[in-house]
Amino acid sequence: MADRRLPYTPILARLPPLVPFVGPEALQRERGGPFRARLGANESAFGISPVARRAGMAALERMSWYADPENYELRAALAAAHGVAPDNIAVAAGIDDLLGLAVRAFAAERAAAMTAGSYPTFAFHVAGYGARLIEVPYREDHVDLDRLLDAAVAGGATLLYAANPDNPAGTWREAADVERLIERLPPGMVLLLDEAYAEFAPPAAIPAAGVLAPNVLRLRTFSKAHGMAGGRVGYAVCAAEVWQGFENIRHHYGMNRIAQEVALASLGDPGFIAGVVAAVQAGRDDYARIAARHGLTALPSGANFVNFDAGSAARAEALLRALIRRGVFVRKAKAPPLDRTVRVTVGRPDERAILAEVLGAALADADRGSA
Amino acid sequence: MADRRLPYTPILARLPPLVPFVGPEALQRERGGPFRARLGANESAFGISPVARRAGMAALERMSWYADPENYELRAALAAAHGVAPDNIAVAAGIDDLLGLAVRAFAAERAAAMTAGSYPTFAFHVAGYGARLIEVPYREDHVDLDRLLDAAVAGGATLLYAANPDNPAGTWREAADVERLIERLPPGMVLLLDEAYAEFAPPAAIPAAGVLAPNVLRLRTFSKAHGMAGGRVGYAVCAAEVWQGFENIRHHYGMNRIAQEVALASLGDPGFIAGVVAAVQAGRDDYARIAARHGLTALPSGANFVNFDAGSAARAEALLRALIRRGVFVRKAKAPPLDRTVRVTVGRPDERAILAEVLGAALADADRGSA
Repeated sequence: MADRRLPYTPILARLPPLVPFVGPEALQRERGGPFRARLGANESAFGISPVARRAGMAALERMSWYADPENYELRAALAAAHGVAPDNIAVAAGIDDLLGLAVRAFAAERAAAMTAGSYPTFAFHVAGYGARLIEVPYREDHVDLDRLLDAAVAGGATLLYAANPDNPAGTWREAADVERLIERLPPGMVLLLDEAYAEFAPPAAIPAAGVLAPNVLRLRTFSKAHGMAGGRVGYAVCAAEVWQGFENIRHHYGMNRIAQEVALASLGDPGFIAGVVAAVQAGRDDYARIAARHGLTALPSGANFVNFDAGSAARAEALLRALIRRGVFVRKAKAPPLDRTVRVTVGRPDERAILAEVLGAALADADRGSA
Repeated sequence: MADRRLPYTPILARLPPLVPFVGPEALQRERGGPFRARLGANESAFGISPVARRAGMAALERMSWYADPENYELRAALAAAHGVAPDNIAVAAGIDDLLGLAVRAFAAERAAAMTAGSYPTFAFHVAGYGARLIEVPYREDHVDLDRLLDAAVAGGATLLYAANPDNPAGTWREAADVERLIERLPPGMVLLLDEAYAEFAPPAAIPAAGVLAPNVLRLRTFSKAHGMAGGRVGYAVCAAEVWQGFENIRHHYGMNRIAQEVALASLGDPGFIAGVVAAVQAGRDDYARIAARHGLTALPSGANFVNFDAGSAARAEALLRALIRRGVFVRKAKAPPLDRTVRVTVGRPDERAILAEVLGAALADADRGSA
């Protein structure tokens, strides 16, 4: 940005280089070959529904046409599923897109609050829109809702981000705690309740279906249980006024037509999603056993991943590197207290077997300091 | 946006309701049935390459995986095609996405200049980022590059938008004229040179391949000649500093994996693209004959659409309504002088036959004032 012919705005001119996540493809280019198991990005190991796949094949024939910019049919189906009106559904290219829209609409050049070490793309957008980031630590590996709200109020935040279940923690708060937070929200503060992993959570963690309050956006995605991370379809269940506000700034022709049709078809196959959820539950239990066999603790998880507790940030970092070197793509949290863990997405049984196969050797690498 | 619990930023709070384009699906819902011919959105009537289709079928099997956020392979292939380095290629979800990024990076809360009535999505982003829009009229149905630059300088614009060929005009300027504009660009002003329709233009209209200047973004798309409007893949050929600036604000996980792989495959099938370009040329000639048969003039076009001159804005509006009522989706420009025309995307021969079949009756409707 040194070229003076480029008139970057003051906000952009002062940004340091930012990248929310390095992708597994970049890591593969570094290591010179594909991973044996891709268990680092919380993608679904269980694919898309066969019904959805057939819809995708058919949709390819219409790829020359722009997607319906109103997402009319998808919003109608989602509205029916959530017991709300279509205007209570804001569709965008993944939750990341909605985070950007919300930061731009409600927090640009103001302040926003989140848990330190929680989903980094929210912090990315906060920086990018020139807002101040207020961070509150995890409390015993859980999002600290009370302290988050107190800090948001004290810091003058207009936007509060909380994921339930949380990523990367995997832990969750009860619906009653979320509802208490919502009751305490002051006027002029919006809550982004990121429920990307809701399908995998204990039912008691998720508030009843519907719009929770005029100033709450419940964020959902097709990237996890529906197996459509590569499709980019997310949505908010929110007040109609929020959707109308986003209409004025969103990328109207930003949706991929195939993804739109695949998502609609996937909604029509709830049996497949139930099967994915059961498979993820079995995989989490499997990971707990694998962890125990190697003297590690698996943190409780209400998501499609499990954190393996390595006891210290240094050991976790060494374990991460050893696993990646041995061909297993995983990630780890950067901020304490979760930086002592390695986050492993639930894979299929064959992928879990690869993890089980290399974990002992990777731990030995880590403990020898050779990693 | 009346709810005081929603803390819209001042920029958003003062925006009137904005929609860049009403989609054909919304028009179909209004009229209660599908169009006989979809010739209004400048989508390709000639589909995607068979090679690209096969890549899409294969990519569907990897839909559960996020796309490579660096777009590494696609950027490498585009760099080779344009004779530049990969860091001179900025990939995003269509040109619309790049327009938003450029307005945000270079013009937010400042001023930007464009031709009045040219591509409305640029104006949409200018409004959404709180910038002032400077508009210059077409000159004899052409973009007036000299006056555009003069107005941009006089108005303190940091961003100048010019499409070549232009949409909706279809007309173009010679490469030498574009190059003269670039030489005259003052420091601190960025040119967005929208070349979405470059493949269909006379070769003399398009500057030689490569980065034209540090402060020029050449915008290209897979939506037109490559037939991938529903895929959302656009890119800028630009200075590496521009790409680096966008890295700090772009939606890193915003690309659809299938679209990414289809675009890469389509680049590998230049014979298909040449065939599309030839078919579009034949279609434009056909439209000129159809227009002449009905006493209309077809404007010259360097794009995949043709403007039928109805002689007055009122007659063009009536003709538009009559065509839509008769099942042919077309669009028309809203601003003078092009508001006297109806814009018809080049269709396949069977679609052109439908237009030819209904045009006489639609004109009669329009002239009876019954439309």
